[in-house]
Order: sequence, then C-alpha cells, then structure tokens
Amino acid sequence: MSDPRFFSRQGPFDLATLAEIGGAEIGTTGEQGRILADIAPLDLATSDDLSFLDNAAYLKDFTQSKAGACVCAPQHADKAPEGMALLLAAQPYEAYARMAQAFYPQVVDAAAIDERAIIDPSAVLGENVGVAAGAVIGPGAEIGDGCRIAANATVGAGVVLGRDCLIGANVSLSHCLIGDHVTVHAGVCIGQDGFGFAASPSGHVKVPQVGRVLIGAHCEIGANSTIDRGANRDTIIGEGCWIDNLVQIGHNVVLGKGCIIVAMTGISGSSKLGDYVAAGGQVGIAGHLTIGAGARLAAKCGVMSDVAPGETVSGIPAMPIKEHFRQVAMMRRLAQKRGQDK
Amino acid sequence: MSDPRFFSRQGPFDLATLAEIGGAEIGTTGEQGRILADIAPLDLATSDDLSFLDNAAYLKDFTQSKAGACVCAPQHADKAPEGMALLLAAQPYEAYARMAQAFYPQVVDAAAIDERAIIDPSAVLGENVGVAAGAVIGPGAEIGDGCRIAANATVGAGVVLGRDCLIGANVSLSHCLIGDHVTVHAGVCIGQDGFGFAASPSGHVKVPQVGRVLIGAHCEIGANSTIDRGANRDTIIGEGCWIDNLVQIGHNVVLGKGCIIVAMTGISGSSKLGDYVAAGGQVGIAGHLTIGAGARLAAKCGVMSDVAPGETVSGIPAMPIKEHFRQVAMMRRLAQKRGQDK
Amino acid sequence: MSDPRFFSRQGPFDLATLAEIGGAEIGTTGEQGRILADIAPLDLATSDDLSFLDNAAYLKDFTQSKAGACVCAPQHADKAPEGMALLLAAQPYEAYARMAQAFYPQVVDAAAIDERAIIDPSAVLGENVGVAAGAVIGPGAEIGDGCRIAANATVGAGVVLGRDCLIGANVSLSHCLIGDHVTVHAGVCIGQDGFGFAASPSGHVKVPQVGRVLIGAHCEIGANSTIDRGANRDTIIGEGCWIDNLVQIGHNVVLGKGCIIVAMTGISGSSKLGDYVAAGGQVGIAGHLTIGAGARLAAKCGVMSDVAPGETVSGIPAMPIKEHFRQVAMMRRLAQKRGQDK
Repeated sequence: MSDPRFFSRQGPFDLATLAEIGGAEIGTTGEQGRILADIAPLDLATSDDLSFLDNAAYLKDFTQSKAGACVCAPQHADKAPEGMALLLAAQPYEAYARMAQAFYPQVVDAAAIDERAIIDPSAVLGENVGVAAGAVIGPGAEIGDGCRIAANATVGAGVVLGRDCLIGANVSLSHCLIGDHVTVHAGVCIGQDGFGFAASPSGHVKVPQVGRVLIGAHCEIGANSTIDRGANRDTIIGEGCWIDNLVQIGHNVVLGKGCIIVAMTGISGSSKLGDYVAAGGQVGIAGHLTIGAGARLAAKCGVMSDVAPGETVSGIPAMPIKEHFRQVAMMRRLAQKRGQDK
Repeated sequence: MSDPRFFSRQGPFDLATLAEIGGAEIGTTGEQGRILADIAPLDLATSDDLSFLDNAAYLKDFTQSKAGACVCAPQHADKAPEGMALLLAAQPYEAYARMAQAFYPQVVDAAAIDERAIIDPSAVLGENVGVAAGAVIGPGAEIGDGCRIAANATVGAGVVLGRDCLIGANVSLSHCLIGDHVTVHAGVCIGQDGFGFAASPSGHVKVPQVGRVLIGAHCEIGANSTIDRGANRDTIIGEGCWIDNLVQIGHNVVLGKGCIIVAMTGISGSSKLGDYVAAGGQVGIAGHLTIGAGARLAAKCGVMSDVAPGETVSGIPAMPIKEHFRQVAMMRRLAQKRGQDK
Repeated sequence: MSDPRFFSRQGPFDLATLAEIGGAEIGTTGEQGRILADIAPLDLATSDDLSFLDNAAYLKDFTQSKAGACVCAPQHADKAPEGMALLLAAQPYEAYARMAQAFYPQVVDAAAIDERAIIDPSAVLGENVGVAAGAVIGPGAEIGDGCRIAANATVGAGVVLGRDCLIGANVSLSHCLIGDHVTVHAGVCIGQDGFGFAASPSGHVKVPQVGRVLIGAHCEIGANSTIDRGANRDTIIGEGCWIDNLVQIGHNVVLGKGCIIVAMTGISGSSKLGDYVAAGGQVGIAGHLTIGAGARLAAKCGVMSDVAPGETVSGIPAMPIKEHFRQVAMMRRLAQKRGQDK
C-alpha cells in the first residue's frame, strides 16, 4: 500500500513476532504461522496484510476483509471471516500501533548540516544533529542530540531543544524551551507575543510579554498551530500532549500531561487544563478557567466556566453532555410538534 | 482601480468582444460600441469600467452606478440606469469572471531558477519551471512543466507536481502527488502526519501514517490550510476543488470533484465528501462520515452524522436546514413570550 | 521572573517614577519609597516586584500577594494586604502596561542586513533596516526606516512597509501597503488571492483578484493569520487594529480603527466593521454585512445580519446578548423540567 517514494518498510513478520511486539494473543482461527508483509485497512488488505478493527463502525468491513491477520478485541473474534488470523488485545488500536511501528519505524533524514543552513556561531548543537537547507538557528540556541531541523525552519535566539526533536519545515520558534522527543510539524509558530494589550480609545497599549513557552517531552504539535509565550509567567504544555493542526494556545495557558487537543481548538489566555484532558475539534475555551483532569470537551463546544475533573461537557455554552443531549432532543420534539400543528 | 505595482491590465475591449468572451448577450440599452478599459465594482465604476451585478443585495448600487457597462441577469435589465450598457447572462458572475480574466490574465513570474534556490541534484524539473530564492526542493521530487515555486517554499523528497502548478511562499509539501494546474497559496502544509495515535495513560502511541495526499487537477488550496496525509490509505482531494484559507483536512479524507470548502472548516479523519459538496465557513465534520454529492453544509454547522446527497444541513448538531430554521424561530418566540410574561 | 536568555530588563524604578510613567496615583498604604526591580503576577510576586489587579477574579490572589507594589483601581485599595504599596489608576491594566514597558522596552534585533538575506536590487530600503538570513525581498518593494524583517519572511514585489514595522519569521506578504509601526507575527499570510470564483459544474471559474491589502499604522497581526487581498477594491485594516492568531479576513473586508479581533475569528468577504468593533474568539461573520462602530461580538457567535453600532450580540445565529441569555436560560429550565417529569 505505501508508496516507496515516501516510505521504507521493514519485515515481513510472522504472527508470533507481531503478537509479542503488540502484547497481543494469537486467536484460534486462521493459519497460525502466517507471514505478514505490510499493513492495510480492512477493505484494501490482502492475505499478506495485517489490519485492525478498533471502531465498531467498521465491523462490516471486518467480516468481509481479506486481510491475512487482524488485530481486534476478543469480543469481535467470532465475527472474523474464515481464514483470517487474529491478534487479540484489549486495546486493539494500541497493539496495532506498536506492530505498525515495526513495519514502518520512524525514519529521519541523515544527520547532516546542510551547507546552506544558517547557524549562528554561538548556537550549540549536540551530536548527530541534522539541519536542512535554509533553516536558520539564532544566537545562543541549544539543539539537543539527535534533533532534525527541517528546511526553512527558524529557531530563534536562546531557544533550547531537548534530544531527538523533529522540527518541521517553515516552523518559527522563539522564546521557548522544548523537551526531549518533541515533534513540531510544519508551519507551527511557538513563542510569539501573546494577545496582551490594554484596550484604549486613544490606541491600545501593548503589555510586554515576558514569559516563555515550555513544552514537555514526547509532545506532538500539529501543522500551523500557534502557541503564544506567557505574559508574565510561562505557557506550559505538559509531557506527552498531542496537539492537532491549527490549534491556538494563548498566553499563560497550562496543559497537564497527556492532553489531546483536536484540530482548530482555541484555548484562551491563562486557562489551566489538568492531566489527560481531551478537547474535540473546534472547541473554544474562555480565559482564566480551570478544566479538571480527565475532562472531555465535545467537538465545537464553548467552555465558559470551569469543568470538574472527569466531566464531559458539550454545547455552547458548554454543559454536562447529558443535559446538552436532553436540550437537543427537547428542541427537536418541540419544533416537530409545532411543524405538525401548522 | 488596480495598482500598477501589482497588476498589469490588458485591453481595452469593446462590448462585442467582452460579450463573446463571457458568452453574454448585449442588452438593448446604452451605447453599444462602448469601449471598456477596466473592471470596477458598481459603486466605484466610471464610464470606462465594466462592472457586474450578481448578488441582489447590490441592486441599489446597480441602479445608481456610473459603470459604462455591467454584466447582469436578464431579469435585472430594466433596473439599469440610463446610459449603462448591459451584458446579459444567465450566470452573470461566471460571465464576468471570464471577462475579468481578459483584463487581468494570470501573470506568473519569469521561469527562472534563482541561484539561491536549493534543488537536490536528483530532483527532476520540467520545462519552463521557476524556482524562487530560498525555495528548497528535495531528492527525487518531480516538478512539472510550467510550475512556479515561490520563495522559501519547501517541496519534500519524492513529491510530484503536475504541470503549471503555482506553489506559494513558505508552503510545506511532503508525501503528496499534485495534479496539473493546482494553486497552493502561501503557508499551506500538505502531507504531514495525520493525528494518528492510540491514546494511553502510559503515553499515547503513534500510529505510523503511511498514506499520501493526492490532489486532483485544477484545485486551489487557500493560505495556511493543512492537509494531512493518509494513515494507511490516501487522503484524496478531487479535481477542481476550491479550498479556502485555514481549512483543516484530516487523514484518509476523500473529497469528490468540485467541492467548495470555505475558510476555517475542519474535516475529520476518514470522512468522505461526494462531488460538489459545499461547506460554509467554520463548519466541522466529524470523522468516518459520508456526505453525499451536492450536499450543502451551512456555515458553522457541526456535522455529526451522514448527510444525504443534495441535502442542505445547518446547526449544531447539523440537521436539515428547514428543521433548524424552525428550531431557531421557535426558540425566539418562546423566549420572547417568557420575556413578556415577566 | 523573565528569562535573561530572552529578555533584558531595565530599572529598577521607584514608586514615584512608576506612578508618573503610568499616570497613576500612589496609595496611602505601604512603604512609599519602595524600589521595584521587576514585574510579576500576584501569586508569584515578591517584595521587589510590581504586580497588577485588573480582573476581579484575581481579587483573592491580590489579598494574599507578597508583591511590593500593585497597580489597581481605587475601589480595590482597601483589600490590599499589609505592606503592599499601591499605584491607583482608573484603568489599572493600561497604567500597568506603561510601567511594564519601562521594565521591558521593546528590543529589536540589530539593524543589520544579513549577507544571506535575498534582496532584489530594485527594492528600496530605508535607514536603519534589519533583514535577517533567508528573508526574501522582491523587486520594487519599499521598506521604511527602522523596519525589521525576520528570518525566512518573504516580501513580495511592490510591497510597501512604513517605518518601524516588525515582520516575523516565515511571513508571506504580497500585494499590500502597510503603515508605520505595524507588527506582523510569524507565519502570517497577507495579500494572497481571495476566495473568488464563479461556481460551475463544468469547473469553477476564477475571478481575478486585483485589489490590495491596506493596513493602517500601529496594527498588530497575530501568528498564522491570513488576510486576502481585495477582489476589485481593497481589503482595509484600519489604524490600531489588534488581530490575534489564526484569524481569517476575506477579500474586500473593511475594518475601522482600533478593532479587536480575537483568535480564530473569520470575517467573510465584503463585510465592513466600524471603529472599535470587538470580536471574541472563533466568531464567524457572514459576507456583505455591516457591523456598526463599537459593536461587540461574543465568542463563537455566528453573525448573519447587520449589527447596530454599540450593540452586543451572541449566539448562532447572533442576536442581542440579552435575548441569547434568555434563550439559554429558557432551554435549561425546559430541559430540566422534562428531565424531572420522567
């Protein structure tokens, strides 16, 4: 399936190896010694391919799949088509992820410093660093071992990157300290001034933004997202956060560990999210709020007040999701009734 | 009207020539042999200018316009002010578009390879290609005849561009195959990893994203939009799609032909849009949905379930637009009634 | 508080100097001759720090703060903790902003033209201009005195910048005239084609976009925002507008003076905003509307019709905010009642 212009595949692997890699158990169906050469989705897979079933919406594809093997939850095993080997796991997507990484381990460009990269003499580069053509690294920047800086990215004065960071093309970094193993996709802007000014009819007055952005280890920041530096404290992204494309994070925002922020969500200044908060796409979070650990914010909701730990909210303004569902259902009934009354 | 620093004008043209270019019929009013030297909006046009009426909201401007000639629908002809020549067309905006192109044909930079462009020796460039200063073209990339790559754009390893593509400044392309006559505006990111990972409290696990982005001929992609590559199949943008600024398109998404996606819309992973779907601004489409051909999604709606071909939906969650209007009207009445009751 | 890698601090200042800078009055509490060495938020400040209280949500932090001095409104003076000197101002955030600027005056890079900047010989640069490595300045561009063009920014042919503009990294400018003292943050795209085409089943037909973008003096444009050039007139951003990150401004839009546009707001083509309009985050404004001076658009609202001067609107579709609050309250009551009825 994958295009050799872009990806190089490892393997093949036999079922037992994949089971070990993914922490899965081999099911009782299918040909146990099967060799898998690639990964593919259920509808496209052939007998050489490993596939997976995670979302029950794809159960029909599962029952009709020609995949040689499939990672799935034990409760779906009896729906498997004849001849499909199974790799059973309680968390099938996670197990599949680890197996897929075996087929396609992350490949990074060679650790070369392109002669057309522009590196300030006072910048400090670790071992095994790659800097592509047109990338600009400013004075006093520190680039950890194993980092790759893609073409035309800019790393501002004093910026610090931990080890094994991947900085995408055309990224703009300033006023930030970034932990180990962080991936910043193309076009991201980190560390610019927050939206800080005193509104005044005689001309808005800028408030100097003298904080930084601190990004924990193992974060991933999606393309063209923006993270403003703090006003007078730091903007902080906790370890292991995954931030999607076109997300906006305002000054002084604090994200706990492992938060998941889906595309086009905006988090206004000084709001604090606990660990493992998950925000759906196009969510808006007002400023100065506290979102408790493990809270879930449904796509497109508008959060205007604090959210308790573990709570799931939805709607504009955001409310407990059950209440929102009740409102949506009530509206539908009332409007249909009126439609019929006419 | 246009600034000669930025635009170079052709013409003038007489009415008959313009009528032929636009497939319009000359109306019975006005001075038929009139020569038009430029285009201008109704309120700013003088007797040398061609204007157009498409949106009825501008009917008053039309009746007061000093334009020498105006493209409009036949039913508006009798509202024309004295002395205005008319070019009548059933689709006045389309007819005007073709005439305006005659005044302002697309101008591209000279087909020069700037000596400060950075082109991998293994990249293959067609005839008549322009690559501006600071642009970086990676190994194995193929650039079709007549393409222009603007300053500081990056074209990643193996990327293929068809003929006559225009790639804007600071664009980041990777893992994609792009058809002929595609325009990619400044700051766009295409081909980066999708938001693919298995969420886990012990650290989210990345799922390798081994698909591509395929973009059909004659597409236009707006500034700072992002299109993720597929996870295990391709993300596909059909021929002739127009995508506005700051749009997000997730992994595995498929757009049919001629879709119109207005600014700030987000399309979540694995959703499929049929031909000629139109999405208003700030629409959100959840993942794994099917939006039928010709469906229309009103601005800001949140699509959480499949939409039938030809249907128009609105609201959050999105519903048939008539139902949404009924709900909005009902809410207004109920709240006013309560307000009066107090 | 601030990191010396990124910021250099002035001062210290005594209370009297700060009062004069901020137009504040020294309160009767605290040690009047106190010397302040830095700024800090209420919860982190020590006796050497100046802090401020603007948002009443932080009143508790105020009462417990160890700040040596604090700018606040006179009505909060009696809540100050013992030992805190006060600087009283009717507009405390504005007064603080001016004092903070004294501690942290804007620092710009040296006015050097990097030898790896790429400047067309026909471009005209004023006095005291800085152009960083990888920045590309096109033919005929005019760069005013005191401007700084950051790394890998592109300034297209014919673009004009006034004096003392700051253009961020990876910015793409074309077809625009920019006034004095304008700050354009990283990744912004200004002047590209608007979303102009006549939709047609035989292929959408592009309408040439032959206007410009005009940006008034003292504007600030946030990271990765996009401003399209006019179709047949200019897109105009009035003097002193503050535009946040990831904002989209369509072709022909006109903003009056001093507008405040919070992140992720989209303004559709040809809409006109009067002076000092304020739009919250993720607002959507449909095309061809008139928003009166001083109107306020609540976060996430969807403006589908004209808004009167001074009006505050909220909701989707946007309505007067009191009406929206009434609807929200009514919905809550009705749904709760139904919940109880079951």
